[in-house]
Amino acid sequence: MLTIRRVEERDRETILQISSAVGVFTQEEVNTVDELLQAHLYDPEQHDYHFFAACDDSDRVLGFVCFGPTALTEGTFDLYWIAVDKSTQGGGVGRALMESTEDYLRDAGGRLVVVETSGTPAYAPTRRFYERLGYEGHLSAPDYYRPGDDLIVYTKHLH
Amino acid sequence: MLTIRRVEERDRETILQISSAVGVFTQEEVNTVDELLQAHLYDPEQHDYHFFAACDDSDRVLGFVCFGPTALTEGTFDLYWIAVDKSTQGGGVGRALMESTEDYLRDAGGRLVVVETSGTPAYAPTRRFYERLGYEGHLSAPDYYRPGDDLIVYTKHLH
Repeated sequence: MLTIRRVEERDRETILQISSAVGVFTQEEVNTVDELLQAHLYDPEQHDYHFFAACDDSDRVLGFVCFGPTALTEGTFDLYWIAVDKSTQGGGVGRALMESTEDYLRDAGGRLVVVETSGTPAYAPTRRFYERLGYEGHLSAPDYYRPGDDLIVYTKHLH
Repeated sequence: MLTIRRVEERDRETILQISSAVGVFTQEEVNTVDELLQAHLYDPEQHDYHFFAACDDSDRVLGFVCFGPTALTEGTFDLYWIAVDKSTQGGGVGRALMESTEDYLRDAGGRLVVVETSGTPAYAPTRRFYERLGYEGHLSAPDYYRPGDDLIVYTKHLH
């Protein structure tokens, strides 16, 4: 059984380990995950970044998601990060995290989910993952991350 | 003659007046301009937001631009805000601000400029403005800002 719960301080090391081990995030990106995670953990005033974890029966963290409201929009939320432990990929943990996020956002009045990702071959499994979940991809900025590495924006309307 | 120079503390009221008077920015957006402007003016440590103004011979501010490096990219910069005093629109101030920004970014190693804007009719003049300057528009997120208000991402490679 999977449980989805808010990320707590004791999960920090695991979250960073999972982020590093997935193999597609640069060190700068892992540092950004940590920065947002610290805002989530230690700044009770902020509502920009929320972290949830998927855990097994022993409360071992198998994956996490980070999302928050998109500035200057009405009812749009950014899904900033999602990562699943390499050993459990393909087992439905990512899908459970996404569906749980969508339920949470629907309850919070969310209307649209936006995910930015890369157009490189390394991210092909990530793009297929979003497409299977009903996200629509838009080529939004060629050469965005670096030459040859395009920005693809995925969107999904919540009903 | 137009002069393009860094925005200083004494320009703040004029910048906010211009932002309000252009008529397309919501109050929340004007507040965001002010927030970034304060980072530019009072936080010498930050390099995320730069403001430049276009001034006439009497040093009257006719328009301004705000830009900064895009996180987690190599050589990509976001143009966050540009606005020109209503009384001088169509007189080349906007173009001068954009060209000056592109020169500045080229010197700073910039490779790509990204501008987010709205797909609504109110923003049609804005979109034509970017297109005339060689920017390419990409429909990136339908209903992004609110229902019926799409996100258009414009990009231009700097050579």
